Formats: sequence, C-alpha cells, structure tokens
Amino acid sequence: MNNEANNCLIAQSGGPTSVINSSLCGVIEAGLKNPGIDRIYGAKYGIEGILKEYIYDLTEEDREQIRLLKQTPSSALGSCRYKLKDFKENDYEYVKIFEIFKKYGIGYFFYIGGNDSMDTVDRLSSYAETINSNVKIIGIPKTIDNDLFGTDHSPGFGSAAKFIVNSVTEIARDSHVYNKKMITLIEVMGRNAGWLAGASALSNCDITSAPDLIYLPEAPFTLDKITSDIERLFKNKNIINIVVSEGIVPEDKEIFEFATNDIAKDNFGHSKIGGIVHSLSCILKKRFNCDVKSIEFNTLQRASISSASKIDINEAYKCGRDAVGYALKGETGKAVIIKRISDEPYKAKTGLLPVSIIANKEKKVPIEWINAEKNYVTEEFIRYVRPLIQGDVNLVKKDGLPRYSVFKSMR
Amino acid sequence: MNNEANNCLIAQSGGPTSVINSSLCGVIEAGLKNPGIDRIYGAKYGIEGILKEYIYDLTEEDREQIRLLKQTPSSALGSCRYKLKDFKENDYEYVKIFEIFKKYGIGYFFYIGGNDSMDTVDRLSSYAETINSNVKIIGIPKTIDNDLFGTDHSPGFGSAAKFIVNSVTEIARDSHVYNKKMITLIEVMGRNAGWLAGASALSNCDITSAPDLIYLPEAPFTLDKITSDIERLFKNKNIINIVVSEGIVPEDKEIFEFATNDIAKDNFGHSKIGGIVHSLSCILKKRFNCDVKSIEFNTLQRASISSASKIDINEAYKCGRDAVGYALKGETGKAVIIKRISDEPYKAKTGLLPVSIIANKEKKVPIEWINAEKNYVTEEFIRYVRPLIQGDVNLVKKDGLPRYSVFKSMR
Repeated sequence: MNNEANNCLIAQSGGPTSVINSSLCGVIEAGLKNPGIDRIYGAKYGIEGILKEYIYDLTEEDREQIRLLKQTPSSALGSCRYKLKDFKENDYEYVKIFEIFKKYGIGYFFYIGGNDSMDTVDRLSSYAETINSNVKIIGIPKTIDNDLFGTDHSPGFGSAAKFIVNSVTEIARDSHVYNKKMITLIEVMGRNAGWLAGASALSNCDITSAPDLIYLPEAPFTLDKITSDIERLFKNKNIINIVVSEGIVPEDKEIFEFATNDIAKDNFGHSKIGGIVHSLSCILKKRFNCDVKSIEFNTLQRASISSASKIDINEAYKCGRDAVGYALKGETGKAVIIKRISDEPYKAKTGLLPVSIIANKEKKVPIEWINAEKNYVTEEFIRYVRPLIQGDVNLVKKDGLPRYSVFKSMR
Repeated sequence: MNNEANNCLIAQSGGPTSVINSSLCGVIEAGLKNPGIDRIYGAKYGIEGILKEYIYDLTEEDREQIRLLKQTPSSALGSCRYKLKDFKENDYEYVKIFEIFKKYGIGYFFYIGGNDSMDTVDRLSSYAETINSNVKIIGIPKTIDNDLFGTDHSPGFGSAAKFIVNSVTEIARDSHVYNKKMITLIEVMGRNAGWLAGASALSNCDITSAPDLIYLPEAPFTLDKITSDIERLFKNKNIINIVVSEGIVPEDKEIFEFATNDIAKDNFGHSKIGGIVHSLSCILKKRFNCDVKSIEFNTLQRASISSASKIDINEAYKCGRDAVGYALKGETGKAVIIKRISDEPYKAKTGLLPVSIIANKEKKVPIEWINAEKNYVTEEFIRYVRPLIQGDVNLVKKDGLPRYSVFKSMR
C-alpha cells in the first residue's frame, strides 16, 4: 500500500455474466503492462465491499490465474446491487469511499456493470468533481440483457444469446421426438428488454423451426393473442415451441395470478420478475388439452462458459483493456461503449460516452425489429445479433472440466 | 424393398439422450460396412411407429449426415413410450410387427432404449421364439438415469452427468457473487435412482464446495433432515447449494403438497415426477428467512451436446456397432451391456446379457455409496463416475452453432 495516487481499483457489480471476468482480465493485464499504474487492487462485492474495505491486492497474482479469468464465468470479485445515496442529501458514503481511495493510493477506479452500476459511476464522478478529486472513474459495460443505452451492444449479451440459441435448438429437437401434440414454453431473461428472447430466432435450423413464436416485452401481449397464435399453428403442426421474455406484462394480467402475487422490489426499485411460463402453462394446458412443458433457463444463461461466444469474450476483454488506456489519458466520468463498424465482416471498436447519458436508462428492442404480428423478430434483428454469437472458446480443462481462475489473495 | 431377410431395422425409444444417435450411427455404419446386411431401415417413433409402418430406408443417406449423428442430440428417429400388450392375451400387435418385418425383409431388429424399452425387446424376442421367427432382436442400452440393470453404466449417463457437473459448478459460482445468505436448490433427473444427483459431487472444485448437500432417492428424506443439515451449514457459511434428485420421496410427504397433487401415471405405470424443489423452496424460504432459488435443468440435461462426454459418445457408438456384430453371429433376445475392465486407466468393453434379466428392473445407487449422514456420496461413487465424464467433443459447427444430422428420407 502506498499513498501515491497511481494505483487502480476494480470492482464488479450487478448480475454476473459469462464474460464479466474477461473485462476484469483486460483491466488487470493492461494495468500490469502500463508503467502509469503501480498496484492493482480488486474490491470484493462491488461498491458495497469498498465501503467495508474488502480490498485485495491483485498485483502479485499468478499470471496464469489472471489469464484463466477469460474462461471463468460469474463475477470473480463478487458483486452487489447497492445504490449509493444522493450525495447532496448525505455524503457520508462518498467521504468514506474517497478516504479509502486515498488510503490505497487509488488514481483510477474501474466499475464493471450494467445500467444501475453506471448510476454508481455517475454519482461517484459527480462527487469527485465537487471535491476536485483527481481520481479517474470509468464504467465498463456488462449485461446479458443488452439494455445498456449508448452502446451498440453490451459484453455478456452475445454469450447469453448463444446459450439461448443452442439451448432452444436442443429443447426443440427434444420436443420433436414424440408423436403427440405438445407446447413447450421457454422463459428467458432480459428484464424489460426483449434482446435475449429475440435472439432465440437464431435457433432456426434445417430440422426444427424453433422457436415458432417469440414474445418480447416491447410488444403488447394478452392471453387471447397467444391463444390465437397457437390455434393457428396447431392447424399445420403438432409441436409448438414458444420463447417468452421474463419481462412481458400481459395487458390482461389479472388472468395470470403471478402478476399480482409476491412482486418484490429490489434495491433499485425494479420488480423482481420471472416465472410467467409456469402460470401460462397451467392456463394453456386447460385450453388446449395437451402437454405443456415450461422451462426456465434461470442463472445458467448468465453463468455458462461452455457455449460462450469468442467475439463476446474478446470484446469484454477489450472494454476492460481500453478503459485503462482512456483513464490514463485523463478521461473520467465516462463509460466504455462498443461501436459497430460493419456487419459483414463484423468489425467493432470501443469508444467513450459521458456516463450520465447512459446511467439509469434502458435500451429496448426497436419496435420496427418486431414483426407485424408481434410474435417474432425481423431479419434486421437477426442480422444485428448474428455476429455477436460467433466463435468458440478453447477452454483449458482439467479432468474434462473447465479450469476456473482462483486468486490466492482472496481465498 | 426386397423379401430376403437380410435387411435391418433400427428404432429408438424412451427419453432422448445426448448420445442416443451415436448408437444409431454405430448401427448404421456397421450395417453399411457389413456384407451380411443389405438395406438399413429406420422406424420413426419407436415400436409405435413400426405398428404404423413409419419406416424409412436410410441406406442411401449421405455419409456425412450419418457421421453428424455423433454430435446430434435427441432421438433422430423420434421415440415413444409405448408398452406392448402381453401376446398371450392378445397377439394382434405382434402379428402386425412381424408382418412388417417380413414385408421389409428384416432379419435384424435393433432397439435403442432404457429399461422399459428392454421390456419391448424381451416381449418381441419371446414372441419370435414362439413363432420360430429367424429375426434377430437386440437391445442397445440408453438412459441418462443410469438405472439399467446388468450393465456397468448406460450410454447417455456420462454426458448428462457432465452437463450436471458443469452446470452445478457454474450455478454455485453464480450463487457466491452476492454477500448474503442464500440457498440454491437444484433438481436433477434420474427417476428413482440417484446416479445423476450423486454425479454433482464432481462439481467440487478449488473455489466452490458445490454442492454442499446431495439428496438421493435411495436414502430416507424428511423436512426435518434437510432443515437440520442446512442449520448446521449456516453456522459456517452463508451460501448453500443443494442438489435434489427428482425422485426423492419425503417420508413426511404430506408437508410437500406436490406429492399429493396431480400425480399422473405414464403408460408404464410410473408416476410423473419432478418439481419438488419448488415446494421445498417455499417451505425453506419461510424457515430460514432468506433467498431460496429453485432451479430445474429440465430437458437440457438430456439434450445438450456442448458438454457431452467423449467417452460416452464413443461407448454409445460401440454399443450400436457391436450390436450389429452380435446379431450377425446369431445372437437374439439379448441386450448389449458395458463391462468395466479398469478405472485407471479407464477401460471397458461391450458384452451381452439375456434381455429378460434386464427388462423392467431398476439399478439403484448402492446404499454403501451414500454417506452415513445420507446427504452426499462416497469416494467410491465419485471414482465410479469420474471416467465417464471425460473428454470433449470437437463439434463441427456452422455460423458458430453445432451442425445436426438431417436425413433426407425422413424430411
């Protein structure tokens, strides 16, 4: 520990992704290479952990363990869903955080997270300005939901989308083995945005047209709507696979008991969502008098490394690496974004945006990327997603299982 | 079509697995190579499809599509859960089946399936004997549940086990990111046998002790038992991951509403099981006043190819290939089994057993492979499973997604 402000601190926040540690790897490796940075600290459990001084020196960690971060899913530094108070009302937390920055000689703070975490970056950098602090504060994007504003897409989305594409294809193949009428309902994450649900359109392949229907939160949804969609399909086929975004809000929500029961709010005031396919399956089973299977991918879609996308892992890495470069150039109060240069061949580069533009907003699927019937996505949507799920990871394995990074300083 | 009985017919039955098509590939490739076999027919939807004459000539299928079967999950020929009637009471179905055998010149019939499907093989071969039929009938083992009697293990188990090991590790890592008390309940398949649940013990790794508890159907289970196990663990840790077999039957089952509601029976008289973790999570949430997440892997555990085991794929192939060899040597009324020769290095070979010994039995986890506390498996169990999840598949891909086999004759 020293008192010069040329050390850096990294933390992770919000829901984990398969590639959030690739961004961490990018920051650490760039930090180690760059003579402008001395020690590299990691905070456990995000900003909440910084307040509790859960701070670990990662500078001497084994280089191989750092490299393994690129194939280690879920936030290696732990996470939080902690909302900083408004410092104009009460600056206690801010004083504490900047004291800790000072104690550890932190000149650069990197926060890897989604739109809520960008709120933290925004508040911290506004506060830094009011106290004339020199700490450079940069947000690094991460969210499987792809709902982060201002960036073409977010690291984490491509791999979750790929997991969904592979899994929906596999489930659709499985659903076709029996010669009987059947509906399979698959619920995917995404909060109030239908990016992940829509990505399942890429599951379509030679053998199965999977899924047959996709419902996104951006389009109106009613029980009558899904019922008539299914009735129409049953005229020509026996087996129907449907992807439903966890965030759909039925207009006739009183029919879906789920909508009124037990809706808890998290610390950012969001309703806890998910589970709609179970209510829906009970209703459809009675309507159609056939097997209705309901499947939730749950945390697997954000924690799986075996179907991660190489493009996604590499982009996550670059966002971390470039964040260090931007901070060393004196940038602060900004978030790294991804700018798409072309679709075919796919090319993209990182950029920067003031974090105040990004924080607390949600980027939804444009309504023109949803079909007229409001039960599928368009070719433009598919063209947007396709490059993001490309490329496989060659996982380093031991006894047939992927190896994960372990930091000795944090054990 | 010809009338010489030197053609073969293959069908698949029961729940799909990730490697059931490797066995199909083994039969087809051995059949194509062997001059003793002329045409190779596939029946769609198992024995039920044969009764309906859903029969396709696979002899001219593209060789590459046949090879792709080794990386194509879920029964490519479709499946059924159809129980043949006792022919002593009514031989209508049997007469029909053997007429179809005759029409297609079938001298060899291969049925890939689990213990219920072996019942079909047993009945057909007993009937064949009574009518002095020369058709050679061989069962090829398949079940993710690993509950097939008489074989060291069954093709399908290793890959499902590997999916579970990988997924439980990933979920455990995900569950550790937040600094709060949490229970995660993971339900896995296996019917009345705890092989798949027990396999999750291999998820233990440097970072996470996942799972903390494993409950198998072979051991007694009560709400008091799991509650006291959790209480004990909570003294030393905040985050608990628990694997529960779908087949556990709580002794105090009246507490778990699930046990009394809506238990349907399938055609073999088995109760449809699954879903216990949802009732359990409601109960534990109230008891421990903390987040309790319930996760079901559902069909993914039997349909996933990306985490299939190479050992499993190769053994499934060999079971199919050797079935052809055995049938051509005149064997009938038998099932292929796997005999383990050694653990380290792992060696195994196929063998044959009279199918009557295998049919309708369930091989459960030996009670001495469950720990004294009845909440984990022993080292012997782990030593048994470890070789079966080894080796990765190099999937042939297109646009970043695995390619699946498509038969033009069946489109």
